[in-house]
Amino acid sequence: MLQRFADLAVSVGSNMQPGQILCIEAETGMEPIVRAVAERAYEGGARFVDPVYFDPYVKRARLQHAADDTLEFVPSWYGNRMTALGHEHAARIVFVPRVSPGILNGVDPRRAGRDQLPDLRERLEIINKRLVNWSILPFPTPHWAELVHKELSPEEALEKLTQELLHVCRLDEDDPVAAWRERDQTLHSVARRLTKENLDAVRFEGPGTEITIGLLPSSTWEGGSTTTIDGVEYLPNVPTEEVYTTPDPTRAEGVVRATKPLDIGGTIIDGLTVRFENGRAVDIQADGGADVLRERAAYDEDASRLGEVALVDREGRIGPLGTTFYNTLLDENAASHIALGNAYELAVGEEDVPRINKSAIHIDFMIGGDDVRVTGLTADGKEVPVLRDGSWQL
Amino acid sequence: MLQRFADLAVSVGSNMQPGQILCIEAETGMEPIVRAVAERAYEGGARFVDPVYFDPYVKRARLQHAADDTLEFVPSWYGNRMTALGHEHAARIVFVPRVSPGILNGVDPRRAGRDQLPDLRERLEIINKRLVNWSILPFPTPHWAELVHKELSPEEALEKLTQELLHVCRLDEDDPVAAWRERDQTLHSVARRLTKENLDAVRFEGPGTEITIGLLPSSTWEGGSTTTIDGVEYLPNVPTEEVYTTPDPTRAEGVVRATKPLDIGGTIIDGLTVRFENGRAVDIQADGGADVLRERAAYDEDASRLGEVALVDREGRIGPLGTTFYNTLLDENAASHIALGNAYELAVGEEDVPRINKSAIHIDFMIGGDDVRVTGLTADGKEVPVLRDGSWQL
Repeated sequence: MLQRFADLAVSVGSNMQPGQILCIEAETGMEPIVRAVAERAYEGGARFVDPVYFDPYVKRARLQHAADDTLEFVPSWYGNRMTALGHEHAARIVFVPRVSPGILNGVDPRRAGRDQLPDLRERLEIINKRLVNWSILPFPTPHWAELVHKELSPEEALEKLTQELLHVCRLDEDDPVAAWRERDQTLHSVARRLTKENLDAVRFEGPGTEITIGLLPSSTWEGGSTTTIDGVEYLPNVPTEEVYTTPDPTRAEGVVRATKPLDIGGTIIDGLTVRFENGRAVDIQADGGADVLRERAAYDEDASRLGEVALVDREGRIGPLGTTFYNTLLDENAASHIALGNAYELAVGEEDVPRINKSAIHIDFMIGGDDVRVTGLTADGKEVPVLRDGSWQL
Repeated sequence: MLQRFADLAVSVGSNMQPGQILCIEAETGMEPIVRAVAERAYEGGARFVDPVYFDPYVKRARLQHAADDTLEFVPSWYGNRMTALGHEHAARIVFVPRVSPGILNGVDPRRAGRDQLPDLRERLEIINKRLVNWSILPFPTPHWAELVHKELSPEEALEKLTQELLHVCRLDEDDPVAAWRERDQTLHSVARRLTKENLDAVRFEGPGTEITIGLLPSSTWEGGSTTTIDGVEYLPNVPTEEVYTTPDPTRAEGVVRATKPLDIGGTIIDGLTVRFENGRAVDIQADGGADVLRERAAYDEDASRLGEVALVDREGRIGPLGTTFYNTLLDENAASHIALGNAYELAVGEEDVPRINKSAIHIDFMIGGDDVRVTGLTADGKEVPVLRDGSWQL
């Protein structure tokens, strides 16, 4: 199991090249997979492997005891390290969760919203500059398994989550590399067709959801693998089932109801609805945890505006499981979603880069499902059916 | 147990001040003590706690598989982080071992000698500039316990090591803080008397040992607590039983036989003898592992010269246990010792700073014992008995 995950992370995911520095970011407790990746990477010619363990219990101690006015402090060397990874054109592998869901339950949500670690603004910068070949992958942890499969014993829960992750990562295939190559081609093909329609906006309609999101003139649809400025092709998310684009942050009107619970840094937000006016989230409601999202959405000028629109069909491997993973990497690939905050530069032309969302945050939440219709709108008023009953209409 | 270790590290050891950043460096597997320290530190007003886990198994993978010409590579952000800790006047707590003894057994010793991590040159710089209040303390690990108490079951070994560490850290006292204050006063008093003798050299004589080590005109003897440039008093080593000085790196003549096994980054060196000529280690022999020390001693220009001379009496708590801990922090406080490499600026006057050892390495090895006589020599030829049968003669 470890070996298969490690191979996937190093080859298909990050596509680490000989001579590269490889950074591995993980939660404390994930030592076995970090060590397996390190071994595989050094065998593959890594110049140096830099493992970074994030300790969610130290974060919890901070949120419980530290002074209010210190919670947004991040030491200079955290960001400088990330910037230096870009400078070195390093490879980067991240195993999630880095704060297993539930560990932060009970801490003051407003305080939790002010400490964004382990996320760093500089991470978004090196991604947008395409300096690093990177990949985020899931790895099972006991805490996480207990939340996802509450009905099972801890051992059974961990075993079930592990089997599900192997399945959605296509590691139960004889040739996972070939399986990912095929899925990658499908995503690229859908993205090409969507881009060709030259949409001006996208409309989502379903139970509790009625929203129209504007796109930029040069917005393109992307999906699957991408490449660094050095031409290294890599798969940023494993698993990945989405095609996405960068919207106009000033144009979103209507209401969305989240179709899955959302996990923000260990706090679970259920029953989320968000109302947008003039592109801005003006009202955030939830059955629990809404404060955490409100706090994040107030983090900076662009934090309450959209930075991503992503579409997922019903043919991916995550949706059919019917499991809620309380983890964005997985849940976002089960359903169409939008994100508050920072946008990906690579999904717009150079002329529109100044217009995209520049926030330090990026929070995805699921708004899609088989009963949510997605329709494209062109500048001249034509309606283009995109998803009906979870199937592509293009 | 955790709480007592954590209190000791934060209060007596590093003496962390409210508002300081606290960095905690430890080996993977030490999460419980790191989290206890973090909690205690945040309660005590820490601005930020930065835990750094070193993974010795990733180091082992490097030594087994990485290309020869990459082994001395250290990413820029490792040193930059240490320098930044100095810039911030941070507090720093290090739990050892960070590479539990035995984990690197079997790797090519010459390769092992080229990878000095987790040690960093920048650490010595911020210590010499007295920018950080820091403390190194031991914490029991299963691997370590198995090596120290081979004759016991793993559980019993860990329990015995834990009890020994509680004892030598004076945590079995009702008031450990008072106990350390008293021992600290003794060390300061011995150091003052030694400095008053104004010695030009120190001679060690015992089985297999016959060496004379020159001191600098301004060499002073130090011991116990010290202070930062901000006036924060802290105990760099817990436990500490030594008084030490900075020698003249150009004057050492004779042979020394190590009286304890030496652990260098996980490799155990037994039966070590070193011959010095004109201050330089010209011949290094051992029953096993000599290559690792030879490699380190060739690391840079000053690596084969001395940077420390330290004296330990028989009244400390470590010597009487009769246990070999295969760990410098503990074993060096059981016996008098010398160190190859970098010297502490604070044990010489400003005028002699340019003359002291500037190496990037610092490796202590034990040369003292009850049957090793230590004699001071003054510039005008007077002999001053210093230690006989492990007791101070001053």
